[in-house]
Amino acid sequence: MPFTFAERHIGTTADAQARMLETLGYESVEALVTAAVPESIHVLPVVGSVIPAAASEREALAELRTLANRNVVRRSMIGLGYYDTVTPAVIKRNVLENPSWYTAYTPYQPEISQGRLEALINFQTMVADLTGLATANASMLDEGTAVVEGMLLARRGSGASTNVFLVDSDALPQTKALLANRAEAVGIELVELDLSRVEPVDTLPDAFGVFIQYPGASGRVWDPTAVIAAVKEKGGLAVVAADLLALTLLTSPGELGADVAVGTSQRFGVPMGFGGPHAGYMSVRKGLERQLPGRLVGVSKDAVGNTAYRLTLQTREQHIRREKATSNICTAQVLLAVMAGMYAVYHGPDGLKRIATRVNLRARELAALLRASSIDLVNDDFFDTLTVRVPGEAAATVARARLSNINLYQADENTVQIALDETTTEEDVLALTTVFDAVPTSLSVYDEIVGSLPTALDRKSDYLTHSVFNTHRSETSMMRYLKYLADKDYALDRGMIPLGSCTMKLNAASEMEAVTWPEFAGIHPFAPEADVEGYLTLIEQLQAWLAEVTGYDSVSLQPNAGSQGELAGLLAIRGFHRAAGDFDRTVCLIPSSAHGTNAASAVLAGMKVVVVACDELGNVDVADLRAKIADHAHELAALMITYPSTHGVYEHEVRQITDAVHEAGGQVYVDGANLNALLGYARFGDFGGDVSHLNLHKTFCIPHGGGGPGVGPVAAKAHLAPFLPGHPLAQRDTIAHRDGAALPAHANIVSAAPFGSPSILPISWAYVRMMGSAGLKEATGAAVLAANYVAARLRDHFPVLYAGDNGLVAHECILDLRPLKETTGISNDDVAKRLVDYGFHAPTMSFPVVGTLMVEPTESEDLGEIDRFIDAMIAIKAEADELAAGSWSVEDNPLHNAPHTAESVIVGEWEHPYSRETAVYPLRSLVSGKYWPPVRRIDQAWGDRNLFCNCPPPEAFEA
Amino acid sequence: MPFTFAERHIGTTADAQARMLETLGYESVEALVTAAVPESIHVLPVVGSVIPAAASEREALAELRTLANRNVVRRSMIGLGYYDTVTPAVIKRNVLENPSWYTAYTPYQPEISQGRLEALINFQTMVADLTGLATANASMLDEGTAVVEGMLLARRGSGASTNVFLVDSDALPQTKALLANRAEAVGIELVELDLSRVEPVDTLPDAFGVFIQYPGASGRVWDPTAVIAAVKEKGGLAVVAADLLALTLLTSPGELGADVAVGTSQRFGVPMGFGGPHAGYMSVRKGLERQLPGRLVGVSKDAVGNTAYRLTLQTREQHIRREKATSNICTAQVLLAVMAGMYAVYHGPDGLKRIATRVNLRARELAALLRASSIDLVNDDFFDTLTVRVPGEAAATVARARLSNINLYQADENTVQIALDETTTEEDVLALTTVFDAVPTSLSVYDEIVGSLPTALDRKSDYLTHSVFNTHRSETSMMRYLKYLADKDYALDRGMIPLGSCTMKLNAASEMEAVTWPEFAGIHPFAPEADVEGYLTLIEQLQAWLAEVTGYDSVSLQPNAGSQGELAGLLAIRGFHRAAGDFDRTVCLIPSSAHGTNAASAVLAGMKVVVVACDELGNVDVADLRAKIADHAHELAALMITYPSTHGVYEHEVRQITDAVHEAGGQVYVDGANLNALLGYARFGDFGGDVSHLNLHKTFCIPHGGGGPGVGPVAAKAHLAPFLPGHPLAQRDTIAHRDGAALPAHANIVSAAPFGSPSILPISWAYVRMMGSAGLKEATGAAVLAANYVAARLRDHFPVLYAGDNGLVAHECILDLRPLKETTGISNDDVAKRLVDYGFHAPTMSFPVVGTLMVEPTESEDLGEIDRFIDAMIAIKAEADELAAGSWSVEDNPLHNAPHTAESVIVGEWEHPYSRETAVYPLRSLVSGKYWPPVRRIDQAWGDRNLFCNCPPPEAFEA
Repeated sequence: MPFTFAERHIGTTADAQARMLETLGYESVEALVTAAVPESIHVLPVVGSVIPAAASEREALAELRTLANRNVVRRSMIGLGYYDTVTPAVIKRNVLENPSWYTAYTPYQPEISQGRLEALINFQTMVADLTGLATANASMLDEGTAVVEGMLLARRGSGASTNVFLVDSDALPQTKALLANRAEAVGIELVELDLSRVEPVDTLPDAFGVFIQYPGASGRVWDPTAVIAAVKEKGGLAVVAADLLALTLLTSPGELGADVAVGTSQRFGVPMGFGGPHAGYMSVRKGLERQLPGRLVGVSKDAVGNTAYRLTLQTREQHIRREKATSNICTAQVLLAVMAGMYAVYHGPDGLKRIATRVNLRARELAALLRASSIDLVNDDFFDTLTVRVPGEAAATVARARLSNINLYQADENTVQIALDETTTEEDVLALTTVFDAVPTSLSVYDEIVGSLPTALDRKSDYLTHSVFNTHRSETSMMRYLKYLADKDYALDRGMIPLGSCTMKLNAASEMEAVTWPEFAGIHPFAPEADVEGYLTLIEQLQAWLAEVTGYDSVSLQPNAGSQGELAGLLAIRGFHRAAGDFDRTVCLIPSSAHGTNAASAVLAGMKVVVVACDELGNVDVADLRAKIADHAHELAALMITYPSTHGVYEHEVRQITDAVHEAGGQVYVDGANLNALLGYARFGDFGGDVSHLNLHKTFCIPHGGGGPGVGPVAAKAHLAPFLPGHPLAQRDTIAHRDGAALPAHANIVSAAPFGSPSILPISWAYVRMMGSAGLKEATGAAVLAANYVAARLRDHFPVLYAGDNGLVAHECILDLRPLKETTGISNDDVAKRLVDYGFHAPTMSFPVVGTLMVEPTESEDLGEIDRFIDAMIAIKAEADELAAGSWSVEDNPLHNAPHTAESVIVGEWEHPYSRETAVYPLRSLVSGKYWPPVRRIDQAWGDRNLFCNCPPPEAFEA
Repeated sequence: MPFTFAERHIGTTADAQARMLETLGYESVEALVTAAVPESIHVLPVVGSVIPAAASEREALAELRTLANRNVVRRSMIGLGYYDTVTPAVIKRNVLENPSWYTAYTPYQPEISQGRLEALINFQTMVADLTGLATANASMLDEGTAVVEGMLLARRGSGASTNVFLVDSDALPQTKALLANRAEAVGIELVELDLSRVEPVDTLPDAFGVFIQYPGASGRVWDPTAVIAAVKEKGGLAVVAADLLALTLLTSPGELGADVAVGTSQRFGVPMGFGGPHAGYMSVRKGLERQLPGRLVGVSKDAVGNTAYRLTLQTREQHIRREKATSNICTAQVLLAVMAGMYAVYHGPDGLKRIATRVNLRARELAALLRASSIDLVNDDFFDTLTVRVPGEAAATVARARLSNINLYQADENTVQIALDETTTEEDVLALTTVFDAVPTSLSVYDEIVGSLPTALDRKSDYLTHSVFNTHRSETSMMRYLKYLADKDYALDRGMIPLGSCTMKLNAASEMEAVTWPEFAGIHPFAPEADVEGYLTLIEQLQAWLAEVTGYDSVSLQPNAGSQGELAGLLAIRGFHRAAGDFDRTVCLIPSSAHGTNAASAVLAGMKVVVVACDELGNVDVADLRAKIADHAHELAALMITYPSTHGVYEHEVRQITDAVHEAGGQVYVDGANLNALLGYARFGDFGGDVSHLNLHKTFCIPHGGGGPGVGPVAAKAHLAPFLPGHPLAQRDTIAHRDGAALPAHANIVSAAPFGSPSILPISWAYVRMMGSAGLKEATGAAVLAANYVAARLRDHFPVLYAGDNGLVAHECILDLRPLKETTGISNDDVAKRLVDYGFHAPTMSFPVVGTLMVEPTESEDLGEIDRFIDAMIAIKAEADELAAGSWSVEDNPLHNAPHTAESVIVGEWEHPYSRETAVYPLRSLVSGKYWPPVRRIDQAWGDRNLFCNCPPPEAFEA
């Protein structure tokens, strides 16, 4: 048999594994993992697995092709926040299909991330410019959740004492459902009104904020200036969801007085993909920057004063704030934000305006043709969407449109909506006239096309004036710009990214192939069920497979990030208790070692966080747990634990822990972040988990994309199934064990689209399909072997913190650098930056323990690369020893000065006590294929003090 | 309207063009080109163009999708040198779909080509190892033409005095046709025999060589050792076409005694693509290295002694040999050779053997099943192909197979062939038993599966033992190796490649998309006509469009390189004269300025080359032309001219020249290499051309692929149409104006596949479709403008050689560096290598004039990049002036020492009279995004003297 996919996915060959096992003193991988994983949780062999035997890459792609062919790509005119768009081929090929972009990690190490940070600051500048607000963040998960974050921001930013939030009735239906679900959990009262008809505006109820969709869900364009002013007058904040394309023609939210703008950048070149992933956005007026949720790229400078980018204000991130967090958003949609930003770079302000003008012209043509046949349009003023009155005929009209291969949106039984986009042609407009039985086209009708946008809202302010949006007009120039940026960055295509807790494994090319197939990319999230059988089948299969490997009964793929999966899981627990009448069960126990998101999600699920202590081994302190349970016996909602723990250890007492919670009437939430250490050996559902989220972007190979997309499915036992996320516009309820269950009105929705980010689900589907159960288990074994091998080989150089049974770690190990710091002054930051000089991405820093590095090699690295990393760490330790021996000063040594750019060792005199060669080629092997960081170490504090988050002027880069 | 494709393809915006025109003193591009192109040849406006108005990228892709859907992808079991194969996704994505690989140029500048040179030496090593011969070249155009080259090599390498070449009757039909056509033109007599039945072997006729297919076209495996020995005994050479996959199990040609092995590497991961492009191969025994045609990569060392790769023995290349050339092959199939070599790197010797063993096992299973039903197999010994006797039933059997979605090959009315491959499954084997009405499968039949390969031919020798074939077993490792190599190279994705005569323009991503669609990639070249309607329609459309833009009547897309197009055109002229009874018309006039291939092709078309002088302006010396015509009045076959000339000038007298040739009864061959300077402004056919070849890899956007594929269609007036290439296995004769014409028996075939390299034709189709006539003309204008702008701005620094009307050049300009050499000792080589330090690929060196650089910016470069190039050239001139002023010595200055690696300015003491900064950052702007060459200047002579063309041992790279 030719090599299997598993043999390609797993980096270590049988020979290599044998050598590694010899180092560890184990006979086999099975023996090693069995020794590491507590026997009490070992999985029982699954009889009659739902996961089929492993397919070859060719076979899996053929099956995906069959599924793709069961989707029907029609002209989508459904709108509601999702529009067909032309992805420029140069961006598709060189970003979306290029591992240099999609395999990169979140830019926490800014020195090796300047390319994607520049791409993100382009995105931020684009959003800030178009929305007319000072500062935009580096993307949100989607528009609907961005509106929720806007509401939460308004609450904390407002001086008003009320808990009322006003919502304009012409908002997107999915946004309304999300607002309802999320407001309810945190005690916000929503008041929905047709704000365009409130007169006089000072009759508006008191509120901490108002939400306006602009243009409205119905396509209506109206001037909300007076409403905004009235709300602000009473101390509220105004949140406006705006269409970025429309903003090229319309007065910006900032100019209307809005404090916050939110929305999606999907139509800037990102395929609809049945709902995602896309980059949502948020921008705020001056003064609210520090209230922004999510990630924010800012400008700072490096050690020698050169302009450099970095994530700024990171202390705001949830992993620091824990239960004081105001948002649980900890990822972004980087890959999609990069695409949308590049779409603006490629088209520039002129090109975007040309596109918007043409879309609007087509809408006006269509309006003129319909009006000429006395067909009734609801709105006089519109950008791209017409709402048409067809009394009693809405369903028939939608059906007729399908005969012309067009999907329209049926708003109610008397109303349909038609949303046009940049792909709409003259032929489409004519086809629509047939659908509406409009009179045959007469050219003269075009003479009557009149303006559709209120003159008062004509955009007069400039946007996208920075040179980056006015330079790359040719494809050649654009291609080179994308390569120039990619060359600055370190991604998995260069070498290992040994980030503990992040599982940076292979994103196989065959897994990625189907993502860009039109049958997956070109589908609207609200397309009729008949058009999406392929997608629904794929989703149901993947749900079943994920349930099987985790020991749960039901899975929802809706959460589009791990944090959202957590939130969904906790909302399910909340729903379960409330359905049982247990309204007081609101306490969530969280170990002190937990990832900060846990606490943040609990807060946003309306829970009260109580911290449980950990012992000196990093395990949950069972005595303290029992005490905390006793303290909150009748309030106990849940315990959240991570397994294996965030310390990378298989805790022995996990069954005792889960039993104790259950006995007290609580539910157990198992954080699935470390599932890569468990698959095939143990299952959350088997050792007491009631609900978990998984990270498809870790264990299931969805690429990190430079900081998103993520996918965070929530998996649960059957008793929680009724409370897993649903969606008012879902084609079908795909959740197992929910037959006949009464969902809450808002369906516990946590994402804007019914199935979250479906267009990347073929990746995880292909991974499971090509690995099979046996392959998944082999991968776990290889990952655990690699981590223990690293621990064993580095133990003599750096203390390894925490271990479980038999002194073994799970899939990652924590190297304690605090002793080194004490003896030499060299910090884990110095070691991390020095690793760049050695051609590596740093391990995870100071998580879960300050002053440490956590290393996760994953199963995909081969022994050569693992040894190269170990050798680099040993060499760095030797450098620290040399420092300690007095060869170099604490202020001037290769670790303190790391990373070294090419420029730094070439230009000017060399005045360091070590050589230029030592600086950049500490190992001779680095001469060939050297990765050159583009900047020196970046000054984090300077950037926070001098906050600037838009494209800096070109002069900033002049030496 | 949003930006058009033409606006993306053309680098200079209207604003930029206005500024450039101002420099030149012209009002408009139209005015400029009209002033440059002689009025006498201006094209008349085309009425009723066959080229439709420009489509958008989306529209063109939709049309290609429609064409693709008219192809039917069936399980191909036709064989005959083309097999379905699994392209590893990691290679598809990171090579075939990655501009870093496909936009690179031929590695004539080895310092910036080390990545693809290493990939090619992997390919050479793979071929040499598998064929058991000492040295393989860097690929051939296809297997059929490689056999022809093998025959020609045998003739010049043999001591025998006969002109007879023996051909085994079990050779591929297309190979036989090619041998017949090519042998006839150069006076070789072919004798076809069933060599396996010649007994005793010393009864074989005297011959300078023998050709054997191994395994045979029928699938038969026999031991040719005795036949080979007998031919060699009499001074002949043995040429063996061998299947590389079979060679993992079979004794190699070298061990059988062969002098030369040829074949294709298609089944090593390169899609069938309806016939091409694929990399053919050739390897030779020790002692014949210097007889190899085509390109050969060898190992040499750089200026500081580091191991480095380069094209070796370049003096053998046709561009030096001209009429003394022994081959007209001047390109290769680099991109495809890289893919095939990487397939071997990824699978390694074990993986390849596993694949071959499985293919053979399936064939044996099928044979056992058929024999169990008393179905008669012709051959006892086979690798993957069964020849089945079905008396009188062959057509019906093939038709029945199609009902099972399988294409078989009908050898004659009583015989069908079944060729299996790595994609053949058990299910396929069972489906075939149904086709043959074999008895229902009984598992017991498998017990009777016996060996199908003669024990005497069992392969015992090792192959692919080098570490590169035994390291990259995981996808992660493979992905990084591909990036590591790509990072060493300079391609269009980094910057301008201003190579005169090579037209390195944009290869748009949208043009490339369809190439990898299965409906284009998965088609066998001999699939039934009903399965290839999409392809045939695309081919006929593209032929019609190319005819229109060149002013010809008929086009053949069969030639898979420019040189082959030339050959086809000259063979057409030859055929035309001979059909008219003019057997003496064999003289081909060629100007002294012509590209060397012209003369080489003429020789291989059986013509006698007579050189015509050029005047001091680089134009054809009309007086000398008339004299030469008079000298050869009755022998005149043709004149070959290039227009605009190889000097980049629009010759004024072109009509006089063509008229003179016609008056003397000759035909005019216009070399289309410089068509990029003419499209839309003049047409070859309108000013006297009878036939031309075009280079789709220049004017029509097929990427250079690092040195291939090329496509060289031949276009002709109607009177030559009957003599354009046909193919005995073509589905349909697509040549216009050939209705009822009697083709020669061998159909003037010049490529193995009927339509050459169809899978890349969607690129050129898309280009024409998206540009439309107007866009093509705009591109010409932009290209001519750019060249004249470069000439104007550099004229004060370097003399510009040659100009036409109004002092204007065409699409390229020649900078004379000889005065600089005289005054400073700085050569054009020094300037070319110094340009690498400035981040540029060098222009064309010493062609057409020794000591010059020829610059062709093309229309795709933007003004920023053009100015950056000009500024670099001016800065280099200033450096030379500084040298002349005595600042530096002739032996130690930044030009002489260029290019500078990072290592060279970092490691060790700096002992040069210029600074490290001057060495690598002569301009401050180079600090950001610097391209680092991996080696110093390469010692060309050392490599030729110490010829080594296989992977060097890893120790060679240790410092």
